[in-house]
Order: sequence, then structure tokens, then C-alpha cells
Amino acid sequence: MSAENLRKIYSESGAEALYLEQDFLRTYLTGFYSTDGYVILDGDGCVFVADMRYFEAAQRALEGSGVAVKEGSYSEALGLLKGKKKIGIAFPFTTAARYLALQKEGFELSDCMPALKKAMLYKDEREISLIQKACEIAEDGFLATLPEIREGMTESEVAGLLEYKMRLFGASGTSFDTIVAFGENGSVPHHETGMRKLKFGDPVLIDFGCKFGGYCSDCTRTFLFGDDKKHEEFKEIYAHVLTAHELVKEKLVAGMTGRAGDAIARDYLESKGLGKYFTHSLGHGIGLQIHEYPSLSPRGEDTIENGMVFSDEPGVYLAGKIGIRIEDSLMMKDGKAVSFMNKTQRNLVIL
Amino acid sequence: MSAENLRKIYSESGAEALYLEQDFLRTYLTGFYSTDGYVILDGDGCVFVADMRYFEAAQRALEGSGVAVKEGSYSEALGLLKGKKKIGIAFPFTTAARYLALQKEGFELSDCMPALKKAMLYKDEREISLIQKACEIAEDGFLATLPEIREGMTESEVAGLLEYKMRLFGASGTSFDTIVAFGENGSVPHHETGMRKLKFGDPVLIDFGCKFGGYCSDCTRTFLFGDDKKHEEFKEIYAHVLTAHELVKEKLVAGMTGRAGDAIARDYLESKGLGKYFTHSLGHGIGLQIHEYPSLSPRGEDTIENGMVFSDEPGVYLAGKIGIRIEDSLMMKDGKAVSFMNKTQRNLVIL
Repeated sequence: MSAENLRKIYSESGAEALYLEQDFLRTYLTGFYSTDGYVILDGDGCVFVADMRYFEAAQRALEGSGVAVKEGSYSEALGLLKGKKKIGIAFPFTTAARYLALQKEGFELSDCMPALKKAMLYKDEREISLIQKACEIAEDGFLATLPEIREGMTESEVAGLLEYKMRLFGASGTSFDTIVAFGENGSVPHHETGMRKLKFGDPVLIDFGCKFGGYCSDCTRTFLFGDDKKHEEFKEIYAHVLTAHELVKEKLVAGMTGRAGDAIARDYLESKGLGKYFTHSLGHGIGLQIHEYPSLSPRGEDTIENGMVFSDEPGVYLAGKIGIRIEDSLMMKDGKAVSFMNKTQRNLVIL
Repeated sequence: MSAENLRKIYSESGAEALYLEQDFLRTYLTGFYSTDGYVILDGDGCVFVADMRYFEAAQRALEGSGVAVKEGSYSEALGLLKGKKKIGIAFPFTTAARYLALQKEGFELSDCMPALKKAMLYKDEREISLIQKACEIAEDGFLATLPEIREGMTESEVAGLLEYKMRLFGASGTSFDTIVAFGENGSVPHHETGMRKLKFGDPVLIDFGCKFGGYCSDCTRTFLFGDDKKHEEFKEIYAHVLTAHELVKEKLVAGMTGRAGDAIARDYLESKGLGKYFTHSLGHGIGLQIHEYPSLSPRGEDTIENGMVFSDEPGVYLAGKIGIRIEDSLMMKDGKAVSFMNKTQRNLVIL
């Protein structure tokens, strides 16, 4: 991250220093991924405190970046806060135990997430290119998985196969637990992938994504495993969900609120009598975390601006019967919504 | 969990009620796995507050269990705390944001993890059988992966393949990010699995585990991918690590502290001049979480008793050169340490 952006976050926070220990926030501020360490940001700049596991690699990676690297652990991080009183931490991601420990040190703690959120809403070129790559890998993995799906496979097997394929294309892992739902299981929006076996004629819903360079992709496809001619209702609803999904890409422009974006899909589905079956939000921001800002929901206050990345995932769920969701990861570019997903079909696929 | 154990945890906590919202703690107290919900435990018993996604399934699963199920969310959970003042929450796992929100409601908050930890140290028969199964699946997955490992595969590919195989044998997912380290990468104890390609003669370290019924397994194997006759030092160290590993199984008996357990392996490696290269603890408890209690480390105060489950994982790491770790999941049974791992070899394998 540029020194200018770091300064902006710092001054926005209103604290004398920021103390951060979450993986995704460390990665965000330094550009260096680690599973451990501390970042202290103050008026003098940014320091990454890493133990011997990461110290040397971080020094090499961050040379000339403006981020200083210091060997140590919690006590060294605390040392950098000496003489300061007002410390910003991430309230939604820091444990109560840590909050109380820092309070005991005499610090006045405030939440710096509003300042960080403001910055994280906008992705720079590097971030966009990593998300683009994570989306390409997810699509390649999905396309390589489709021809290997067989009757009798469990949801868990298909999830494992897809995750393996994404690895083969370069993913470092998944961006969330892959959801694979066969048949009526699709009607549970966050179905827990299990041991249900695939039968001819089953609808299949797969919600998947991977990580590349720390950044996430998010995609959902619903298709039919064989068409046993009993899918009139499924196909009708599928067409409506697809229209809702595509309408968002057409009509969402920079300057609209998340609420207005959500309404594009919701109003359409309501006009088809399906509004009450669209039981979640249209979308969420995507970045180092799978759920970020902005929120595209009936309560979404954020304005969607150029440089923001988010999902477009309308869904219709008839309890115990049918579930259809179609999701792309999008970015707002030159005032318009542009999809990262260009390889897989959104039209109904019948395997 | 039995009503008796629930009462024990409650009275041990010293609070008027416990408020818990972490996946693993909900699962632990109710026996029902969910990704969302709240558990309130007080003198009258245990209530699971679940939203419409889980309500019906939880009602069916928990009928007759003594755990009541109530439909709702955060505000319904709060409602159950009405009239109470002293509330126990899990300080190391609750966010500062939630801590402050509950404080604002007027509650006096205390940490209930010491009471929970005391209970979680001892696994009952059901828990043991789930861990046993998770260990069997991990071993089966590993054995099915070995013959498919080829020169040129990346660490990430091998990790993906193993994770897929574990799914095929019934795992619901991994218990932690699989570590695959080729060659000198093995010398970093928590190496981040990456794009390094496998070469003939490479040592391979794989630290892996899966989940079954919510419970974890943990295993590490180090082997050679082809023997190009330059592995004298590797083989010598391997033999010492293996001896340290097996000595723990022989000599660790109920009533010893975690510190004494750790010393069995550490003293042996020190006698071979390798003590300073054993840079981490001997082991950690295993349960619903991959890192639980007891701790087998130079600072381990817990006494190891019958019914406890933990890892035995000595390792030797020569920076930038060699890394060897051999790990089984063990339980203390009838006063002795018994391994869950009976399928894979601990002797040096040369592929």
C-alpha cells in the first residue's frame, strides 16, 4: 500500500497509533502475507513485527516499500506503542482477551475499522489483477471438474475434486468452504456439503471460490445433472434468476447505493412473484476476505464507486424443493459493472 | 453432553449464565454442529438459539437430549439473559465488539474458558470414536495419495490431492491448512504450501488432518521421494526423531505433566546434540479444534490423564536444509499413551 494511503488511514482513525494482528489486515497494510505478526501504524509510518519464521522473508519482500520490518513478537509490538495513549484496534476482529490486555497496559482503545473500511472499499490495480486471477482459476477449476462429475458421487467428493482442480490451476486454497448441494439440498442457501449422493436428474448448486496472492474469488453455478424432463418449474425459475443476475450487470452504475443495486434484482424477482423466495442479500464486497464492503442489500448504505469489487448473486429457494443461485464477482469500472467471470456459462447447463 | 457435565461447567464458571456463540463451543455443549447460533447455559439447563436455517434440524437432532431449541437470533439470545447480571463469555474467542455490546447491556462479564477447558480436556466415548474415525480417514487419504505423487507436482497440488482423497474416505474437510513442504522447505516448521515443484531425491514433509463429525485428526509424515544416495545426514536425523517420537509413546503415563511429556522427546534429542533444532512444543490437545488442551511443552502445567487426546510431534529443523517431523494423534488410556494411527508407517519410506 502506498505511503499516502497509509497516512490517510492513520489520520482518519483519530488514534495515535494503530495496533493490528489479523492476517488479512497485516497483508492489507504491508502487502506481505504471514500467519503471524503485528503491524503498528503511526505518524512515522508502518512497522511489521515478525518472529524468526517470517523476519528474513519479510525484510527481503518489503525492502524499499516504506514498511519497516522488526524482529519480535507481542512485547516488541507493545514496545512500539510506548508513550502513546490512544490506540486504534479492529474491534470486530480482535478478541476480548486482547482488548482487556491492552486496556490493562493503560491504553485508550478505539475501533479503527471505519478508517480501514473506507480504504478497503477501493481496490488498486494490483488488487484487481489478483482478484481477476483468482476468478480465472476458479472458473478453470469448475470447467475441469464438470466432465468428471458422475452419478453416485457425494457432495463432499465433488467439493474435494473442485478444490483440487483449483489448486492445479494455481490457487493457494479456497476462499471459503465450498458448498455443493444436490437436489433439494440446494434450497438451503448455506447448505453444509455432505454425503448425499448424486442421482440422475438432480439439480446441482455449487458455490465456490479460491485464493490467489491472498485475494478471493466467489462464484455460484446451478445446473442439471441430466434432464429427466421433470424440470419445467426449475427451468422457469432459473430463467428468472438469470435475468435478475444479468439485469444487475446492465443497470448498476457508479453512484448508486448498495440498496439500489439490490433492488434491481429484488424488484424484478418480485414482479415475477419470487421476491419472498429471495431470502438473502444481492451481494457483498470481495477482497482479502470473502465478505467485505460494500454491501448490496436492502439495508446497504454504501455507494458503489469505481474500484469496488463485489458479488452479484440473486437466488430463489423453495424450501425442501428447489434452490437456484447464479453468482459472478464484479467490479465497478468506468462507471459500469464489469464481470470477472468470462469462461463459464451462466445459461442453464445440462450435464 | 450429559446434563451432569453441563451443570458442572455452569457451576464451575461462577456466572449466572454463559453466553456462547462460537461454532466449536456450540457444538461441544449441544452436540449439534451449526455455523451460526447461540447457546445460553444457566441453572435451568442449556438452550440453543438457532435461526430458521438450523431451527428444524436442531429440534429433530436434539429431541430428548435435554438441550432446548429456540428459534431466533442475537436478540432472542439476549432475552434469555434477562434479569441476570453476571455473564460468562469466552474471552479468547469473543470479539471486542461483542464484549463491548454485552457490557453496554449492563452485564458483568467474566471469562468462562477456564471452566470449559477443564471439561474439554477429557473426551468421552463418542468424542474418542469420532477422533478415531478422523484419524483413520487421514491415514487412508495419505496412503491413497502416495502412489499418485509424481516428479514435477507442486506442493499445492499434492496438498489438494490429499485433501480430495480424505473427502473420498468421508472427511467433511480439513482440520487445518495442509502443509506440504518439498526439499529444504521442510526446515520451516509452519511452511506455507506453495508452487515449489517436486524433484527426484527431495525429502517431503506432509502435516495433515481432517474433520469427521466436527472432530479433528492430526498427523505428520516425512519421507524421501527417491533416494539419490545423498541422504546420510537426513537418515541419521530421521532415526533420532523417530526414536524421540516412539519414546514418548513408551514412557508417557497418566499423571505426568505436559512438561514431563515434552521432556521425554526433548531430553533424548538433546542427548544427540539436536535439542536446539527442536524449536517447538512436543504436542497439543486435539478435539473440536486442532489446538486444544493439554499442552505438552516446556511450560506445560496440565497433567495428562486418561481420556485426554493430544499430538506427539517431535521435529528437527536445520534452517534452509533439512526438516523432519513425525506426528501421531494419541490418547491416554488405562494409564498409557495409545496411538490412533495404525495404518501408515513411521519408519522412513522411500517412494
